Amino acid sequence: MAQSKKVGQQTFLFSRPLPILSAASVVGKKEGEGPLGGYFDQVVTDPIFGEKSWEKAESKMVQSAIGLALKKANLAYGDLDFMFGGDLLNQIIASNFAARDVPVPFYGLFGACSTFAEALSLAGITLDGGFAARTLVTASSHYQTAERQYRFPTELGVQRKPTAQWTVTGAAAAVIGESGSGAALTCATAGKVVDMGIKDVNDMGSAMAPAAVATIKQHFVDTGRSPDYYDVIATGDLGSVGKALAEDMLAEAGYDLSRNYTDCGVLIFRPDQDVHAGGSGCACSGAVFSGYFYSGLLSGKWRKVLLVSTGALLSPTSYQQGESIPCIAHAVSVEKV
Amino acid sequence: MAQSKKVGQQTFLFSRPLPILSAASVVGKKEGEGPLGGYFDQVVTDPIFGEKSWEKAESKMVQSAIGLALKKANLAYGDLDFMFGGDLLNQIIASNFAARDVPVPFYGLFGACSTFAEALSLAGITLDGGFAARTLVTASSHYQTAERQYRFPTELGVQRKPTAQWTVTGAAAAVIGESGSGAALTCATAGKVVDMGIKDVNDMGSAMAPAAVATIKQHFVDTGRSPDYYDVIATGDLGSVGKALAEDMLAEAGYDLSRNYTDCGVLIFRPDQDVHAGGSGCACSGAVFSGYFYSGLLSGKWRKVLLVSTGALLSPTSYQQGESIPCIAHAVSVEKV
Repeated sequence: MAQSKKVGQQTFLFSRPLPILSAASVVGKKEGEGPLGGYFDQVVTDPIFGEKSWEKAESKMVQSAIGLALKKANLAYGDLDFMFGGDLLNQIIASNFAARDVPVPFYGLFGACSTFAEALSLAGITLDGGFAARTLVTASSHYQTAERQYRFPTELGVQRKPTAQWTVTGAAAAVIGESGSGAALTCATAGKVVDMGIKDVNDMGSAMAPAAVATIKQHFVDTGRSPDYYDVIATGDLGSVGKALAEDMLAEAGYDLSRNYTDCGVLIFRPDQDVHAGGSGCACSGAVFSGYFYSGLLSGKWRKVLLVSTGALLSPTSYQQGESIPCIAHAVSVEKV
Repeated sequence: MAQSKKVGQQTFLFSRPLPILSAASVVGKKEGEGPLGGYFDQVVTDPIFGEKSWEKAESKMVQSAIGLALKKANLAYGDLDFMFGGDLLNQIIASNFAARDVPVPFYGLFGACSTFAEALSLAGITLDGGFAARTLVTASSHYQTAERQYRFPTELGVQRKPTAQWTVTGAAAAVIGESGSGAALTCATAGKVVDMGIKDVNDMGSAMAPAAVATIKQHFVDTGRSPDYYDVIATGDLGSVGKALAEDMLAEAGYDLSRNYTDCGVLIFRPDQDVHAGGSGCACSGAVFSGYFYSGLLSGKWRKVLLVSTGALLSPTSYQQGESIPCIAHAVSVEKV
């Protein structure tokens, strides 16, 4: 192909840095009380956010994050060319209903908890390809909407396994531009679906770890980079169990990430917050990136971050039909330029 | 922005025609018995397709369509750079589980029944932007999986309203290339979410018609084209009720589409097939385009087709919470070059 931007099997290098003009994060009370609480733009202490349902509350969080991201960049809807967004809900209603109030062409995504990086990856393609000047990306999740959809009504008080994770309540929004300086998208590695046959829906971290490892390894192979290229390599929501597994698998493959590897699901909660193996959900990597990593890139704390959002692509129906859990991980490089 | 390919508010013109190298359609028995039956590549008479569930059958139809599309173009998985796919199921499991066996970077989409055009639109962006040489797109739906997820178990025998539509059982797959001749993507208009406050889930055509009209009108405004530019303008699945409404709305806006406007949901079934207002589902526009319009473009029956896939972005949860139905329509121009 002419002027290919693809390198290797799954990676593409943008022809210029694509600056993240703003990034905003809205989270719930528990996330606000966690170690990163001070980094989030808005902490909503009411889980229903003044709405009549948790689903409407989640959608309102998306709208709130969009409003904050636009305000921070001093932009209006009319400045946006596209919106890419998704969430965990059936038919991604949190995103669809938020997009109803955003008069911008909308591409709905479903990548489970990989959605934020999936959206950033596609935003980069639209901007670098000359199809947009500014693209909005969003992702959200909500503990209560996820529990009742995927597992049990919380009122049942079902005991949770130690490997279980806690769905992050919140939303993230970011606006990416076509050129400029700041913290910018420079490269993306698109994930393939990986299914190692794991069927335990109470251990998503172990199910997703091989997908994260596959994408990270391919990123190094495709780019010729070593782990040391990055100040931070952060998976989305493997949690403590999946993170340890990913570290082992990467070490076995000859990649030493002991210095710079972390996981958004491990970072967002303290162990004493009763979240078992850590955080999960689309908002996990979305809010941690938008709140924590983005500000650290702007301040100069880090110069190069590889965000690897991880998603488990199952449904209660597939699980009940005895299927294993297909997983995916999308990676984006964000660098201070 | 430099070298913008965007024209007007929502449309982009590709810098060169992007040929659809192959398109394949797999449908169920009822679709095979319809007026377009002879145009589909594969008619699966067993609704469960030899699998243990309808959901697995739908996923197998996606795989089958992919296999056919690759075979027709004499391509292998290794020739593909990306796959874009989606369906109606919760967490798009038909697509995710099909993608598990496709070793190609995967972007999952949710655009309800607009998915096929959404995927074509994004495929065009990746190819024109220099990110891919060949991109696979898929979309699927299944009467039985949709009925039990969205409405009632079919065993209940609930009476259907005259405005109700029949979800098409089937899958479509197409491979788009970066340059060449044939039937090619030339232009796309990305849809915004439109919600006119309609709440009747048994009349999706009326809910979706305003979104279709908005995208069609914007396409004409952005490109400066009149309806006469096209040999065929086909909405995805408005059915007979929504189609009549769209015709009226377009006529009121000064656009005469009486010569060349049709709807895939009207075309795919005969009125005596007991489908009430017509077909619907992601496979409706996907299979009708891949089976019927694509072959007509190749044979020279038509030279210019505007496919406007339409989606209703609701879920049973949003409906039960009293919400109206947000809708979207994505349009792509496919021309013989």
